[in-house]
Amino acid sequence: MLDCIFCKIVKKEIPAAIIYEDDTCLVMLDIKPVNKGHCLVLTKEHYENIFEIPEDRLRKLISVVQKTAKAVKQTCDGVTITQNNGRASGQVVNHIHFHVIPRYSTDGHKYSWKTTFYTDEKDLKNYVISLSKRMSSIR
Amino acid sequence: MLDCIFCKIVKKEIPAAIIYEDDTCLVMLDIKPVNKGHCLVLTKEHYENIFEIPEDRLRKLISVVQKTAKAVKQTCDGVTITQNNGRASGQVVNHIHFHVIPRYSTDGHKYSWKTTFYTDEKDLKNYVISLSKRMSSIR
Repeated sequence: MLDCIFCKIVKKEIPAAIIYEDDTCLVMLDIKPVNKGHCLVLTKEHYENIFEIPEDRLRKLISVVQKTAKAVKQTCDGVTITQNNGRASGQVVNHIHFHVIPRYSTDGHKYSWKTTFYTDEKDLKNYVISLSKRMSSIR
Repeated sequence: MLDCIFCKIVKKEIPAAIIYEDDTCLVMLDIKPVNKGHCLVLTKEHYENIFEIPEDRLRKLISVVQKTAKAVKQTCDGVTITQNNGRASGQVVNHIHFHVIPRYSTDGHKYSWKTTFYTDEKDLKNYVISLSKRMSSIR
């Protein structure tokens, strides 16, 4: 895509801290890392998000995410993986990518998102029924 | 695994709000949802994390994550996917699982983790060299 920053990086039109690439995927450092060594794993082809990417490409991508997580883990205590879809989720660059974030017991990052609750059994059951139906409608 | 809560759910020894299952994966609602409809996608077999799971099983798992994300998206604005590995990352149940979280433009959840920075070009380059080497050492 012409105006996509990740496509420009893939085409080497702009520089990036690339640590790995193969025929379908590229891994680079996030320049605003949560912790140093924070990687972004992306497809070379432009797909906006997890809804749009073909299943076989997503499978290749997750294999590179796994490889990256293993490499990152060698010098930290844990690894957090995140992937956002849509502006409402916090996605900034509309080109599918996974964040692979090195974590340390002492890094102080906490999940602070307040959780909610289902009002009662009926409320929960309604979500189960609705989501089950939607799952079965997706091939 | 005998003392694993997710293994017990898979074996139907304890109840859960299951919305999908196939031969290798299971999807259920998180009982402490970030937003209602927040799903957990897991393998039926016990693998602790992304470092341990065989690649072919991870690929099946991500296909079910994609299916779940598509189902969830039908009634929200975006979808956040997270997956934690190790206590330092916030992993609570030591059985690999992805969170698939419905997001709304108005839900108020923000990424509040403070980012850090590379001190200079040399610092960044050292990370590139180190991670590139580690990536190439992983088959």
